Amino acid sequence: MKPTLHVFKIGGGILDDPKELDLFLKDFSNFASPKILIHGGGKGANKQLEALGIKPLMVEGRRITDKNTLEIVTQIYAGGLNKLLVAKLQSLETDALGLSGADANVILCEKRSPEPIDYGFVGDVQSINKQRIHQFLQMQLTPVFCAITHDKKGQLLNTNADTVASRIALAMADLYQVELHFCFDQNGVLLDINDPSSVVEKITPDIYQSLKESGQVFKGMIPKLDNAFEVISGGVEMVILEHSKNINSPIKTRICLK
Amino acid sequence: MKPTLHVFKIGGGILDDPKELDLFLKDFSNFASPKILIHGGGKGANKQLEALGIKPLMVEGRRITDKNTLEIVTQIYAGGLNKLLVAKLQSLETDALGLSGADANVILCEKRSPEPIDYGFVGDVQSINKQRIHQFLQMQLTPVFCAITHDKKGQLLNTNADTVASRIALAMADLYQVELHFCFDQNGVLLDINDPSSVVEKITPDIYQSLKESGQVFKGMIPKLDNAFEVISGGVEMVILEHSKNINSPIKTRICLK
Repeated sequence: MKPTLHVFKIGGGILDDPKELDLFLKDFSNFASPKILIHGGGKGANKQLEALGIKPLMVEGRRITDKNTLEIVTQIYAGGLNKLLVAKLQSLETDALGLSGADANVILCEKRSPEPIDYGFVGDVQSINKQRIHQFLQMQLTPVFCAITHDKKGQLLNTNADTVASRIALAMADLYQVELHFCFDQNGVLLDINDPSSVVEKITPDIYQSLKESGQVFKGMIPKLDNAFEVISGGVEMVILEHSKNINSPIKTRICLK
Repeated sequence: MKPTLHVFKIGGGILDDPKELDLFLKDFSNFASPKILIHGGGKGANKQLEALGIKPLMVEGRRITDKNTLEIVTQIYAGGLNKLLVAKLQSLETDALGLSGADANVILCEKRSPEPIDYGFVGDVQSINKQRIHQFLQMQLTPVFCAITHDKKGQLLNTNADTVASRIALAMADLYQVELHFCFDQNGVLLDINDPSSVVEKITPDIYQSLKESGQVFKGMIPKLDNAFEVISGGVEMVILEHSKNINSPIKTRICLK
């Protein structure tokens, strides 16, 4: 039987809240190994871009990454945030190794075509170097990924952190029984957005179908759930949607094939 | 016999000159493996600190690193510069792995005492995790270090890059025959500062003594040479002072015990 690998993705609010971040990192440190952490950006990037006179450009919630923006987000994601997380994990006895996709060529991307929208220096994942990641895990290291990648032609690229997490989980599923945890600001998929206790504990393809038909899944959750089913169809054992504040709570949504 | 390990340190001007940097990285890529690269800061940091309204504070050529400065230099050194170097090396078929001292706990530091001068978040090297670095080298990886370290209590620290290079070289000397290359903007130690061809090819302790006595070593070189002799006394095979523009040239200063 394959060993279990936990892949956690954090982003948004928790990266901007030092106290909540510390609590999450403590919980993450206590979680069973082997494990991987993938982090997004946080709002600090926009603030700093503005302070430097670089206007953040977003289209449909996605950042347009021009040359100057790429330089600053690389600094913040791969430098500031990534090393902050690594240093904090080291203090908690988790032997973390911070990685961008360029390091050890772990995530190879291709610059997105400028048609129909030119997102600038944005990368779409081509391949994950699962053997390298496996080697790091065998060394008892905990890889901590930012979503800055490269094209192996010398160009760094900004990549969607959810996609990085999904693609890493999929690649590692050849070697591990992978559980992919998307940590966010809700306890999971809620039947009633105003009731945090209305968590759907388990979603299979059948349940998802009926939830969609009855209109009980909120629009914003559909891309997350579609992505989750794509990932488990590709061999990941389970996708878990849970609150980053409380990854040890049994209250969460587990998405699996049956 | 121990295998040879080349440890290169670059800093200053070359990091601010994209063309020269590309040439250096090409030469470095073609250099025999195993090898390690350590990089300093460059002048971009001061420019960005100023743009963000953080006034760079220097005392005797050393940066005073307050909280805001540490945040920005971590971003620039560990994020922007380090990942730029790694991505460029990857494009040259060198499988680079960017590291801060916090990553895999490779460089453990202690915050410098605030007496007599409070340098802020500046770290003095306590220990180098030579086994981890050895493992990375055995994986055919080329570690690329910035001089941001940590105290394993969750605090990142700014450290002198020459010191990081010297301490890594010393630690690895237990396992390798180490040649430590300090790359700078001269061909080596010059007898006449105005004549680039006046390079002293080899300096042993005896030669150093007589050069000092005859006043033929420029004041600015003395700390570099003192450090070099300390390093070779500690077991490093050779320290090489050479121009970063031309590491393949035979014209350089080799510092060794005999």
